[in-house]
Amino acid sequence: MQLPERVTIHEVGPRDGFQPEADWISTAQKVAIIDALAETGVPQIQATSFVHPRAIPQLRDADEVCRAMARPAGVTYDALVPNLRGAERAAMAGVEVWHLMLSASESHNRSNGNRAIAETVAGFEPVVELAARHGAECHGGLAVAFGCPYEGEVPLAQLLRIATMYRRLGITHISLGDTTGMAHPRQIYETMSALQERFPEVEWTLHLHDTRGMALANCLAGMQAGVTTFDSSVGGLGGCPYAPGATGNVATEDLVHMLDAMDIETGVDLDRVLDIARTLPEIVGHPIESRIVRAGKATELHAELISQ
Amino acid sequence: MQLPERVTIHEVGPRDGFQPEADWISTAQKVAIIDALAETGVPQIQATSFVHPRAIPQLRDADEVCRAMARPAGVTYDALVPNLRGAERAAMAGVEVWHLMLSASESHNRSNGNRAIAETVAGFEPVVELAARHGAECHGGLAVAFGCPYEGEVPLAQLLRIATMYRRLGITHISLGDTTGMAHPRQIYETMSALQERFPEVEWTLHLHDTRGMALANCLAGMQAGVTTFDSSVGGLGGCPYAPGATGNVATEDLVHMLDAMDIETGVDLDRVLDIARTLPEIVGHPIESRIVRAGKATELHAELISQ
Repeated sequence: MQLPERVTIHEVGPRDGFQPEADWISTAQKVAIIDALAETGVPQIQATSFVHPRAIPQLRDADEVCRAMARPAGVTYDALVPNLRGAERAAMAGVEVWHLMLSASESHNRSNGNRAIAETVAGFEPVVELAARHGAECHGGLAVAFGCPYEGEVPLAQLLRIATMYRRLGITHISLGDTTGMAHPRQIYETMSALQERFPEVEWTLHLHDTRGMALANCLAGMQAGVTTFDSSVGGLGGCPYAPGATGNVATEDLVHMLDAMDIETGVDLDRVLDIARTLPEIVGHPIESRIVRAGKATELHAELISQ
Repeated sequence: MQLPERVTIHEVGPRDGFQPEADWISTAQKVAIIDALAETGVPQIQATSFVHPRAIPQLRDADEVCRAMARPAGVTYDALVPNLRGAERAAMAGVEVWHLMLSASESHNRSNGNRAIAETVAGFEPVVELAARHGAECHGGLAVAFGCPYEGEVPLAQLLRIATMYRRLGITHISLGDTTGMAHPRQIYETMSALQERFPEVEWTLHLHDTRGMALANCLAGMQAGVTTFDSSVGGLGGCPYAPGATGNVATEDLVHMLDAMDIETGVDLDRVLDIARTLPEIVGHPIESRIVRAGKATELHAELISQ
């Protein structure tokens, strides 16, 4: 079984996790969580989104969050940048990595941004130019890359076409999202093998959801295909908009727990992540989806049986 | 990625799933579920346990269940047989496969059966003889094979030692249980590869729990190591006694859903399993752990977004 020695965790909880929360999370709370995450050893944090405040009111404090967070050395912060206005705000806030985002299917792209994929890509051109002027790096994201909840299967040719568009913009980091948890391990393995063969210069990230219980199996398949960067969200924050009550993002602690057990280095301190995850139910006002918070680590032994 | 074309599902919900339920499930309800499972195409069902009625009151109707269940052609029924008294009951009930069970660690074996492993094995000898006289087949089970909640890691040498004991009893089907969800994919792959190399004549089964979210990843690793028989429990019935509220057995529907998606044949009709799983919360009196019941199948497309 071919596995990497080291995996990079990209923590997306502060953006993808907070975004759908109904109750307001204060700027101070957001910053406290981001700063605590930075102390876990996680090397990359997606801190917020510079989307229009009316579109996602929960992240309307993106500018303040970026000004207030600690930014210790060794941690790279990125934010979602949907358009030129968002890019200007990201530049003002000094965000070093701008995460662009489109969908792999036309219908999902339209439902999310009310535009065709080609229009979204055209809109990225001035963003990429502005990033270059500010010394920021642009990364590309691709939602519903392994299945669209409206259209179903996404052909590999479509992923190659969109990856080519990102490459033409000079982008070398591309993240593929299993936004609604439709991917399965064989698909992940075959798709990532094909993409890496066609674009060996690109650093690929997998953004996996655990909606149908396959997140860690898909991670395993991704690692076997050579992927070494994975998104995850502390406490599994971020649900699935198509199945109310269903799980969304794989929990950072569940992912790190498996990688620790497998002797794959992440540099992330699992206990510190668990400490943060355990504070979340009070902050978001509902239970969280975290296997390790529920069950404890596999290494925690028991003196006796709790109940038969 | 080396994967089998076909996988055999061994449904253990009626035994391992019902066993810890506090509320009485009537004999008629048990039989109805077993008979419905037999209609899903699942080829092997663990129907009950011939353990002492005082030890597991929920399964005290083992004899009646076996008499009443339909037993259509093409389905093999097995039951847990802990000792000679249980074996006599299994013989009377005409059960064709007797599932013996011990633990991979001395402390878990003692906590479960109040005996040393060697004593448990010695107790199996008359059981195996009785099975031969009745034309029944004995299969061997091994709990906490990938980690003991009291002792931690279980050395491979210990698994080889117990497998050798089972082989001396003439047993050719051995099931390894990740009873408390401590296994990880690298361990599954390496352990199953080693066991199959040492005992190529044995048919190995993996009994995986999803306590820490790794059940399907472990299934993937097991298949890559050549394992083609997996236990699962409809609705994910059967919790984790060491972590109240945590998930236990991998749900049959979650396993079949992944295998279907990966084009690995099981012969099991996922929709029929889902129909059964959806009836369970009312029968057991609590919510069930089933990703696919919660989220729907990945192939179920949406006309529009339910909520942002």
